[in-house]
Amino acid sequence: MKSKGQLIVISGPSGAGKGTVIKALLEKNDFWISVSATTRSPRNAEIDGINYYFITKDDFLEKIKTKDFLEYAQVYGNYYGTPKPEVLKVLDSGRDVILEIDIQGALNVKMSYPSGLFIFILPPSMEELRNRITNRGSETPESLLTRFKAAHKEISFVSKYDYAVVNDTVDNACDKIQSIIIAERCRADRMNGDFLKEEISNE
Amino acid sequence: MKSKGQLIVISGPSGAGKGTVIKALLEKNDFWISVSATTRSPRNAEIDGINYYFITKDDFLEKIKTKDFLEYAQVYGNYYGTPKPEVLKVLDSGRDVILEIDIQGALNVKMSYPSGLFIFILPPSMEELRNRITNRGSETPESLLTRFKAAHKEISFVSKYDYAVVNDTVDNACDKIQSIIIAERCRADRMNGDFLKEEISNE
Repeated sequence: MKSKGQLIVISGPSGAGKGTVIKALLEKNDFWISVSATTRSPRNAEIDGINYYFITKDDFLEKIKTKDFLEYAQVYGNYYGTPKPEVLKVLDSGRDVILEIDIQGALNVKMSYPSGLFIFILPPSMEELRNRITNRGSETPESLLTRFKAAHKEISFVSKYDYAVVNDTVDNACDKIQSIIIAERCRADRMNGDFLKEEISNE
Repeated sequence: MKSKGQLIVISGPSGAGKGTVIKALLEKNDFWISVSATTRSPRNAEIDGINYYFITKDDFLEKIKTKDFLEYAQVYGNYYGTPKPEVLKVLDSGRDVILEIDIQGALNVKMSYPSGLFIFILPPSMEELRNRITNRGSETPESLLTRFKAAHKEISFVSKYDYAVVNDTVDNACDKIQSIIIAERCRADRMNGDFLKEEISNE
């Protein structure tokens, strides 16, 4: 029997380098990356089904009612959500799914899909996080402090996750996530007991 | 601050290949392997401090009283135990400790040291386990069946462990255990909160 894929939920404060780590993971693995649904209009070159599923507000509200989202949120009047049937279908096929999502979203997914693998990406230190935010260059001292404080608050949610991976280098962070995925498949509480169903025969 | 080593407890039914897997792990890692204390007499070339710590029954009973064992058992009138102070000292130095032990012993260690990493080595299948036991050649059909039934019963304890590693090839089993050790170090509940103690300065 082919085993189910794992839902790998990745969050972290801005400046931790989630995007780069996920890109590196996708280069090495046949992970499927979840596409969100949204009620906002497509921008520029955004493609339906690639960047987002662009759906109407009525459709979105209907899908909320039928519990067709692993999580959803309303931001500035627009809805965003993670389509559940699609993710479950890919998992059932045995393929692992990556979901990059903010912390509130991840906590909601944890309620709807507790067997997911919740990984928090950390910067090497708060000092380094400050450097990374500063080096983006586009911040005023005030907005930098606001972002830094927000990141500090976000990091306090790390204990709600299964694993915390320090992104000192992308390769290290990737290797750790690969190890976490392998280890999770070995968890004794994921053994399905089939092993012991083999008969003691030839007695 | 140097982090503490991990206590890696490895069990499994006879025929699963624990010994070979542990040997391969020791070749690749600077693990310290725990030496048991016993009240039985040394045999042939056995060396005190290498094969066992050979101690008197009075000493052993005294150490039980002072809770100086992670676990102990009496087998055919002799005592066997895992010296706690020595293991804790090595762990405190930051080095990982391997403890190969039977299932009852592992369950006792779990009570005295619950933060250990409990790994159960499984044969690829019950069929393969039977082949491995048979190929040892020294078994009568009756003793083979007894051993096989004992192994079957032992495997039912897998759910008491953190991880189950199928020993299909020694390399695969080793890689999985390496991944488990790396993943465990990333567990969010092992984060000590130091990360957030860094001040938000330069405000």
